[in-house]
Amino acid sequence: MPQNRRFLLQRRPDGDPVPDDFELATEETPALDDGQFLIRNRYASLDPAMRGWMDAEGNYMPPIPLGDPVRATTIGVVEDSRAEGFEKGQWVMGLNALEDYSLGASGGFTQPIDPDMVPEVTNYLSIFGAVGMTAYFGFLEVCEPREGDTVLVSGAAGAVGSLVGQLAKIHGCRAIGIAGGPDKCARLKEQYGFDAAIDYKQFSGDEDALAAAIGEAAPDGVDVIFENVGGVILDAGLMNLNLNARVGLCGLISEYNTEPRGARNLWQLIVKRASIRGLLVADYVDRFGEGAAKMGEWAAAGKLVVDEHVDVGLENAFDSFMRLFAGTNEGKMILKIA
Amino acid sequence: MPQNRRFLLQRRPDGDPVPDDFELATEETPALDDGQFLIRNRYASLDPAMRGWMDAEGNYMPPIPLGDPVRATTIGVVEDSRAEGFEKGQWVMGLNALEDYSLGASGGFTQPIDPDMVPEVTNYLSIFGAVGMTAYFGFLEVCEPREGDTVLVSGAAGAVGSLVGQLAKIHGCRAIGIAGGPDKCARLKEQYGFDAAIDYKQFSGDEDALAAAIGEAAPDGVDVIFENVGGVILDAGLMNLNLNARVGLCGLISEYNTEPRGARNLWQLIVKRASIRGLLVADYVDRFGEGAAKMGEWAAAGKLVVDEHVDVGLENAFDSFMRLFAGTNEGKMILKIA
Repeated sequence: MPQNRRFLLQRRPDGDPVPDDFELATEETPALDDGQFLIRNRYASLDPAMRGWMDAEGNYMPPIPLGDPVRATTIGVVEDSRAEGFEKGQWVMGLNALEDYSLGASGGFTQPIDPDMVPEVTNYLSIFGAVGMTAYFGFLEVCEPREGDTVLVSGAAGAVGSLVGQLAKIHGCRAIGIAGGPDKCARLKEQYGFDAAIDYKQFSGDEDALAAAIGEAAPDGVDVIFENVGGVILDAGLMNLNLNARVGLCGLISEYNTEPRGARNLWQLIVKRASIRGLLVADYVDRFGEGAAKMGEWAAAGKLVVDEHVDVGLENAFDSFMRLFAGTNEGKMILKIA
Repeated sequence: MPQNRRFLLQRRPDGDPVPDDFELATEETPALDDGQFLIRNRYASLDPAMRGWMDAEGNYMPPIPLGDPVRATTIGVVEDSRAEGFEKGQWVMGLNALEDYSLGASGGFTQPIDPDMVPEVTNYLSIFGAVGMTAYFGFLEVCEPREGDTVLVSGAAGAVGSLVGQLAKIHGCRAIGIAGGPDKCARLKEQYGFDAAIDYKQFSGDEDALAAAIGEAAPDGVDVIFENVGGVILDAGLMNLNLNARVGLCGLISEYNTEPRGARNLWQLIVKRASIRGLLVADYVDRFGEGAAKMGEWAAAGKLVVDEHVDVGLENAFDSFMRLFAGTNEGKMILKIA
């Protein structure tokens, strides 16, 4: 049996994760019981939500036990099987871990995927995976955009944000993106078709100046915010809401490694009779087929561009994961394991 | 003509209002033009929202101009009239100011009221006024309570909060109130029928301890929060949300005189797919008849108790207004002007 490299959580991060919170261990590849199959992981999705799973409290998922490999969505190939419906050589996708080999079981969350159905098999981790479905259902169902709406997206150069901006354009909205740095802002407009891009780094945390910049880009106000960031960026957005605006709260990446600053402009929700609603893609699992079909249609028609940022090697798991917080990834962050 | 005492805003308060921000001036009572009428103000409603009108930014209303009397809803009697439909001796209600006499105009917001329709004419400023309608529409329309829901009310001993708790009971919910001090907590249970009362002052701002106390009072979690306070109290409530919980945001009185602490537990909205929605009674003006009829029905049936705290004398306007922030009022704060 081959050796199984596993990226283990050894200590719960205190604020920013550091390399010593983890260990790349080499263990025996597990033997199969009846009903089980062995997955050779090929690609793993690296997502901000994984940071929450490392804390003792967990979030919508239980915390990763110390000493266990870091939980992640992976796609891979069945290496061996004693489970009906899973054959050697078959591609599968599931919530596994950052490791060479994972155990699957029939009736579990790991499901077959067909690499011939998509341009690249990694698309199952981006446009056809949780990222794409978060954009699709989070924006269209939770934010209820209407034609002519002005839509503000934070974390707009990120995997979900860039798709939301494109979905906004497909639905006849004006799309304004917030991202960090001139390169990302250029990408928002040139690659994803945002109408305007705001570089939050220009404002060094000055909420009023950022709010004014949003107001310049959205002279008629903001009808929808798709929020990935929180903190000053959310507060600046709240100062530009229109009556009955909807804020879809997808993430708060600015707060995952630090004590939250707190949303200080909630009073704007009263003034504008607006709402903030939390969204989680897990609620829409039974409609993923619908979402994937629509996303595929738009992608095939050239209306939807998805960027994937693929780093190579399980030994780079820490550095790749930390890109999400430094903002140095360009597109959906994926780790190639094999 | 009689003299007109007017409680003027002379300076915009910086944080907590102080007496020198105001002046009780005596001016000439204005003469009437055609289409105008003179209101002898009898009672004024003192509301937390008035604090926002004193700031330069305003909120959902324009700021009170410096040198103008402090805007307030009043009820009074027409003293003289050159306007059709308004006769001397008629009771009226409108958005006027803290002053002995206000000018009304036909076609304006001041409308006739019938004191014979209610037990006390002041009820137009409580159960049948903005307070009652805020509770009715804010709770029933915005929070969408269902039978069996657990409802958490902050500022529960206040005018709106105490009505919301009673509406929750009328609609088959479990009602938990948060208030400051043992007397108020006793009143919540004995007078308003709350199932449980939590004295936030016992926790000295310790969010975790307050959250645990809410959890003890709501072992099955909280389905609805009716929020009047914000800050630590909102954050502690957010830690107890059930899936798909609704937070109706009515006020943030803890933040009106200080820099907001900020809502630090917004991530719970994601975990619980919950929402916060701002509410403003002004949106329901055309349905006040419906709301007043239902509130009157419940009050007549003894299911709805309303307390009014009436202070006497325009010269006491400052002290009476500040009760709202000190929490020393027992019921809807009303100032008797004459």
